[in-house]
Amino acid sequence: MAEVEVTLADGAKRTVAENSSVLEVAKAISTSLAKKAVAGKVDGQVVGLEEKLTQDASLEIITKDSDEGLQVVWNTAAVVLQVAIQAIYPDIHFGTKGNVEHGFYCDTDNGSEQISVDGLPAIEDKMAALIKADLPLAQEWVSEAEALKLVDGDPYQAKLVHQLAKDGKVAIYRVQEKVVLSSGVVLPSTHDVKVFKLLSVAGAYWEGKSSNPMLQRIYGTAFLKQKDLDAELARQQEAHDRDHRVIGNNLDLFFVDPKVGAGLPYWMPNGATIRRTIERYIIDKEVANGYQHVYTPVLMNLDAYKTSGHWEHYREDMFPPMDMGDGEMLELRPMNCPSHIQVYKHHIRSYRELPIRIAELGMMHRYEKSGALSGLQRVREMTLNDGHTFVAPDQIQDEFKKILSLMVEVYDDFDITDYTFRLSYRDPKNTKKYFDDDEMWNKSQAMLKAAMDDLGLDYVEAEGEAAFYGPKLDVQTKTALGNEETLSTIQLDFMLPERFDLHYVGADGEDHRPVMIHRGLVSTMERFTAYLTEIYKGAFPTWLAPKQVTIIPVNQKFHGEYAEKLRAKMAAKHIRVNVDTRNEKMGYKIREAQTQKVPYVLVVGDQELEAGTVSVRKYGQKDSESENNNMFIDSLTAEIQNFSRTGDHGKNDDLIK
Amino acid sequence: MAEVEVTLADGAKRTVAENSSVLEVAKAISTSLAKKAVAGKVDGQVVGLEEKLTQDASLEIITKDSDEGLQVVWNTAAVVLQVAIQAIYPDIHFGTKGNVEHGFYCDTDNGSEQISVDGLPAIEDKMAALIKADLPLAQEWVSEAEALKLVDGDPYQAKLVHQLAKDGKVAIYRVQEKVVLSSGVVLPSTHDVKVFKLLSVAGAYWEGKSSNPMLQRIYGTAFLKQKDLDAELARQQEAHDRDHRVIGNNLDLFFVDPKVGAGLPYWMPNGATIRRTIERYIIDKEVANGYQHVYTPVLMNLDAYKTSGHWEHYREDMFPPMDMGDGEMLELRPMNCPSHIQVYKHHIRSYRELPIRIAELGMMHRYEKSGALSGLQRVREMTLNDGHTFVAPDQIQDEFKKILSLMVEVYDDFDITDYTFRLSYRDPKNTKKYFDDDEMWNKSQAMLKAAMDDLGLDYVEAEGEAAFYGPKLDVQTKTALGNEETLSTIQLDFMLPERFDLHYVGADGEDHRPVMIHRGLVSTMERFTAYLTEIYKGAFPTWLAPKQVTIIPVNQKFHGEYAEKLRAKMAAKHIRVNVDTRNEKMGYKIREAQTQKVPYVLVVGDQELEAGTVSVRKYGQKDSESENNNMFIDSLTAEIQNFSRTGDHGKNDDLIK
Repeated sequence: MAEVEVTLADGAKRTVAENSSVLEVAKAISTSLAKKAVAGKVDGQVVGLEEKLTQDASLEIITKDSDEGLQVVWNTAAVVLQVAIQAIYPDIHFGTKGNVEHGFYCDTDNGSEQISVDGLPAIEDKMAALIKADLPLAQEWVSEAEALKLVDGDPYQAKLVHQLAKDGKVAIYRVQEKVVLSSGVVLPSTHDVKVFKLLSVAGAYWEGKSSNPMLQRIYGTAFLKQKDLDAELARQQEAHDRDHRVIGNNLDLFFVDPKVGAGLPYWMPNGATIRRTIERYIIDKEVANGYQHVYTPVLMNLDAYKTSGHWEHYREDMFPPMDMGDGEMLELRPMNCPSHIQVYKHHIRSYRELPIRIAELGMMHRYEKSGALSGLQRVREMTLNDGHTFVAPDQIQDEFKKILSLMVEVYDDFDITDYTFRLSYRDPKNTKKYFDDDEMWNKSQAMLKAAMDDLGLDYVEAEGEAAFYGPKLDVQTKTALGNEETLSTIQLDFMLPERFDLHYVGADGEDHRPVMIHRGLVSTMERFTAYLTEIYKGAFPTWLAPKQVTIIPVNQKFHGEYAEKLRAKMAAKHIRVNVDTRNEKMGYKIREAQTQKVPYVLVVGDQELEAGTVSVRKYGQKDSESENNNMFIDSLTAEIQNFSRTGDHGKNDDLIK
Repeated sequence: MAEVEVTLADGAKRTVAENSSVLEVAKAISTSLAKKAVAGKVDGQVVGLEEKLTQDASLEIITKDSDEGLQVVWNTAAVVLQVAIQAIYPDIHFGTKGNVEHGFYCDTDNGSEQISVDGLPAIEDKMAALIKADLPLAQEWVSEAEALKLVDGDPYQAKLVHQLAKDGKVAIYRVQEKVVLSSGVVLPSTHDVKVFKLLSVAGAYWEGKSSNPMLQRIYGTAFLKQKDLDAELARQQEAHDRDHRVIGNNLDLFFVDPKVGAGLPYWMPNGATIRRTIERYIIDKEVANGYQHVYTPVLMNLDAYKTSGHWEHYREDMFPPMDMGDGEMLELRPMNCPSHIQVYKHHIRSYRELPIRIAELGMMHRYEKSGALSGLQRVREMTLNDGHTFVAPDQIQDEFKKILSLMVEVYDDFDITDYTFRLSYRDPKNTKKYFDDDEMWNKSQAMLKAAMDDLGLDYVEAEGEAAFYGPKLDVQTKTALGNEETLSTIQLDFMLPERFDLHYVGADGEDHRPVMIHRGLVSTMERFTAYLTEIYKGAFPTWLAPKQVTIIPVNQKFHGEYAEKLRAKMAAKHIRVNVDTRNEKMGYKIREAQTQKVPYVLVVGDQELEAGTVSVRKYGQKDSESENNNMFIDSLTAEIQNFSRTGDHGKNDDLIK
């Protein structure tokens, strides 16, 4: 009998009979391994347990307690899901099915009566029955023509048949006379899916194209143990509660409608108020710190991006250029650096002016894949809190410290406390990969390190993580869900000043090359707002809250006038305040204000009117406190100002003797 | 002898011999007419005096004192200019020549030694000599091949020969052995150009395309009388002094570089400060008046502009759509209305919410022809102070009044006093041209008129000037140069609510159609800033000035500390202030601050330091006044606030009892 040699994951080699199955090899290794096995990986390719070994190969046994094993469980659950749906909706059509980050899905098209969340319990019941029935899931290869016949009348499945066909053959499963196209390795029986849950239904375009029909995607997840499912559901609940898209919808902050433009958010009045407040804060802060704010066009001649190198290295993230018909090719900018370089170059610069700090809330466009788009977090049109500082080489350290200090001040105002610093150097073993100026690299890396140490900041050092054009510092934060995110960055750039031939006149009267520092304090308005929404769980601090105060008169007839007087007084101080004059019960109004996370609810009745007070209920607190209305307004104004305007606190005040 | 009948401008008919020249006919009419004649107009076409009449035709004699006569003078001057240039620069190449609004020009390419303004006096001398020489300018027709030979070596002229050729023939003039292509009717002799002046030199792309070589365009003007030339030069001087492009350059407000993008301005820090101040002012004003500010994307699916009708009727002003490759066609928006409609449609709206006022500083892109572009005045990327109010039909009058009152308040804050109102109705004789709803038109036109009368405002009524979709009010202002300009507009729109199927739930529980009101208070940030620059002649009021205060210490060593203390005090109050610490004479520093039109210059020396005062010199005043420094800061703060923030004066204060 012919034999083949398999190389196991630990490097051990084993000789087995030709055409042994993966399961047979697993059994030969150990019974307990075979028991846990759900699939094999032959020469890197995931295959079923029944797959036969026809030649020498590497083999890994995938066990049910591994991440890859879980993928096989989900593949299996997706097949069970499709069979269950078809049993309930015999005429339904199916798009793709498969796995996502935390579970599985199946796309469906039920014509005018699409499946909604209300339909999920019945489908779950049917799935449970199929699992209990312990039905075998054996892959069967049929001809493409035969497969087309089997999916007759389902245009999506027909297209999938063509895509899945290998050498004219298509793999299918037959479960209770239902036919399911095979699109991944599954477990031997429906019974191998132990615990599962259907989670949600959402629209998804066929093939991800907005010009195609919208299908209904049904999401679920599955595990082998109930406690794993429970943990996942708890995680999802927490994720849902903090998800800026959910909060954004509840608080009416923004929306995205792929029909009018995928990844192009509309900021509703509440979200726009938050954004405007952030924008004014950051501009005032930067101007007070010596930045010169500009407005530069979102369009630029494509040539500039050829000079900068973006067109060569970054093209696939850029929007298509527009041919203006008179020889001009215009490009929606993916970055603001070339624009700020134009500002720098507009005048002859002297060493006396340096550092020159150009800043802008610069709108940019980047072509993110539609699958990667997510609320305000990943978008195609974004406005970056961008700044470029042009310095003489010996000013790097001082300027770097100034930027860092400013950054830390800003974090403080937004109450951001959970972040780490990462210094990225070039790879000392492969310096040829980087911009060629050894002295510049060595000096500047030392300068950044010295600056961090001077400021007493903790940081990690990452060799080989620098950009091609210079070393950098990234500030990493964690979202509420534990995802790491770069919130801020300071990057030295030796390259662009060369490419755009920048210079300044030195004290010696000669031309010198400046160094450019790219820096972003709070990333884009979109991403930062998403981040803040998540860390605050939608309860924005007063200075950022879209609505800061709601006044509720106990009785509109008797207390409405006093309420209105208070409102006007506060509005004159630029406090965002409204009076809830609706004909609703007081309890209802208070609850609604809480749901909208309004920082202060003021109830005014006879007692308050008489004493000139307000009954103050702060968001998140159960009890109200009575306070003189003027004192309340004064302390509220101070609260807002302390987190809104640089000029009112911090640096500048120190200078006033 | 055959005869032809000519119909004169006054309708009189006259029979003349066939092949009579225009001049002969003029002579036959009157000797004085013939004396003043510079050209004829046969069947609407301008022709030379020697042109022969070969058939019945209408004929107008163009006299030298008419506007059309002046064009002929300028044509002639342009020929003289070209000959003069060629005499001085024998190897130069020529682009086109011709007339512009206030004179004539000739495009030149002198290779690496382009003509600059320094070269103009010599050219003027040569022109004067040619004029004095009284050289005949007789049109001569040569074959295309012959013409090509005559312009040998000049690629532009060669291309022009092909373009000008008619039936294989090209008209030329020969002046002192120089050959000039004929491109318009000229006077019989160089001597007929009486007084002239060369004005400037500026770059102009060959054929107006930025991908073509840049030629040097030499501008001049000419008249028959010295006093007319003097008047024109005075007008140009005034125009130059107020020209926002000139002031914009002197005060470093903005620049446009066609190489990086025609019509795409870069706002330098000074201009950006003005713009930001206007933006904050207008947003605060609008928010205080019930507007909900939003941010919406500059890109939108092209379909929306098909629905709105823009794609059908406005396409040539739109940027080319971008094919995103997944079936999505994205368009840079030319207007914000469809975006605000998305915001309206995002929720089901109730009559209780109306009027809903959506506002935005909305960036838009319009493809203006490159020849029409001008500084900030005519651009391709612009940010509009836009707003759309959605009202029930019976709210039109009230809302219209509110918008008007707001507009007048805003004008007041910017000190805009020279404007007129124009109410535009549909043409009562041709109502079919308009959106079909007689009752709506009649009612709403009456409402607008009643509102104007109620507010006691003067206005003109213009029948037939309404938009297709509804009546409107335009506010016309005059620029410093006398050009009329629409500064603000309020337009009713019955059509878009239909096209986008907008509705609100009425008190009756049924769906109703709202009316949309488009309104812009101060047009685009670009145009408004250009307008303000011109009416202020660059001397912006303190609240708008990029730099509000310059402090000059008499002696940096002794008074520098006091100056810095004052600066910090003011900066803490958000006053834009600097200390001029340069090692320059005081007089120089003061003059420079004046040139930069800084509203306040404070000089501080021994006396001021001792007394805690400042020596204040207000822009435009000759004398300084001594003032206590705190009092100065307080009154300055009040001055700024009175024209910057709605909340600090005006409406809201009235509500506080």
